[in-house]
Amino acid sequence: MSDMTSNADAPRSPGRPRSVRADEAIVEAALDLLAEGSTIEALSIEAIAARAGVGKATIYRRWAGKEALLLDALRRLKGVMAQPEGHSVRDDLILLVGAIGRNVDPRASKIMPCLVPEVNRSPDHFRLYQNIIAPRRQLMREVLRRGIDEGLIRADIDLEVTMALLTGPMLIQRVLRWNPELDEQTLPEQVVDTVLAGIQAR
Amino acid sequence: MSDMTSNADAPRSPGRPRSVRADEAIVEAALDLLAEGSTIEALSIEAIAARAGVGKATIYRRWAGKEALLLDALRRLKGVMAQPEGHSVRDDLILLVGAIGRNVDPRASKIMPCLVPEVNRSPDHFRLYQNIIAPRRQLMREVLRRGIDEGLIRADIDLEVTMALLTGPMLIQRVLRWNPELDEQTLPEQVVDTVLAGIQAR
Repeated sequence: MSDMTSNADAPRSPGRPRSVRADEAIVEAALDLLAEGSTIEALSIEAIAARAGVGKATIYRRWAGKEALLLDALRRLKGVMAQPEGHSVRDDLILLVGAIGRNVDPRASKIMPCLVPEVNRSPDHFRLYQNIIAPRRQLMREVLRRGIDEGLIRADIDLEVTMALLTGPMLIQRVLRWNPELDEQTLPEQVVDTVLAGIQAR
Repeated sequence: MSDMTSNADAPRSPGRPRSVRADEAIVEAALDLLAEGSTIEALSIEAIAARAGVGKATIYRRWAGKEALLLDALRRLKGVMAQPEGHSVRDDLILLVGAIGRNVDPRASKIMPCLVPEVNRSPDHFRLYQNIIAPRRQLMREVLRRGIDEGLIRADIDLEVTMALLTGPMLIQRVLRWNPELDEQTLPEQVVDTVLAGIQAR
């Protein structure tokens, strides 16, 4: 899979090659069907092809199967990953935390939560979900490792627990609107500062 | 609303009064319909009555309407609230964090995530969702206030942010299985200790 289909910011132009326009129509068709309530399980290559106005062969030329197509489609929902600047560990963590659960595509709020029961039932779907979020977790892990290397963060912390502490509050607030008292604008900074205070080197 | 309908541990016995059996059948019918994929919006008192084998009047004698019935039904899904012992702030927080996202009823994993898009669209449903989780948040807030009173926790912390830090990691792990590297057994203690280290009085 190329980066092209993951790049939600790619400009549309009438001069793009026909194959790119077809790819886009296919991905859009899959997302529309999911947003309209189709489960991953019920979603078929036939239905996607029909909605996109292409033949099944066009889809299979580009993707090995439904899972590969959905990986591209669901990644597209989440837009381009935030890129840490690499100067201040605190600033980079605030950037990454601020990007959590921020979906560029409005269909995401309809699609993502309902995938949860499916993801929990099927090992294939769980792998798909992990493939989408693992690169984002890895970015955060690298910033924390940098903090340890720079002597800011204790070397004995549990990185996975620390990432859950940084990610959880923002994710429940953005996806579930967990607590109306919270301010999403200031939350990333407040979360990062409290967690850093708990894991800072003495 | 009495505590009876919220008590998932209540023993069933053939000797219970008919009205209690009817209440239970009604709540069960509502949960079954939701678990089978009905949206809150599409769920009707008619459908619940038909599934429960009672008349609509029986439902309206007990609940003012669909929202009140659903509040009881969804609370039942979550079982009895954990009760802090009131001795150690750390132990009480570990108890409350350990109870987050632990649903006694297997239908919950099918029902709860799919409510999210509905909850975000409708102010009524958002109020319903907040009515379910607010008492649990309040329990945690009281334990944190006790920690402040006892001089363990800094008085200037943001209580709502602290609660999000305590709740978020466990909720994303239990509901989304966010990170396969995390151990759900040790997570509550790890989360509480890291957060307490970040908010402890100097």
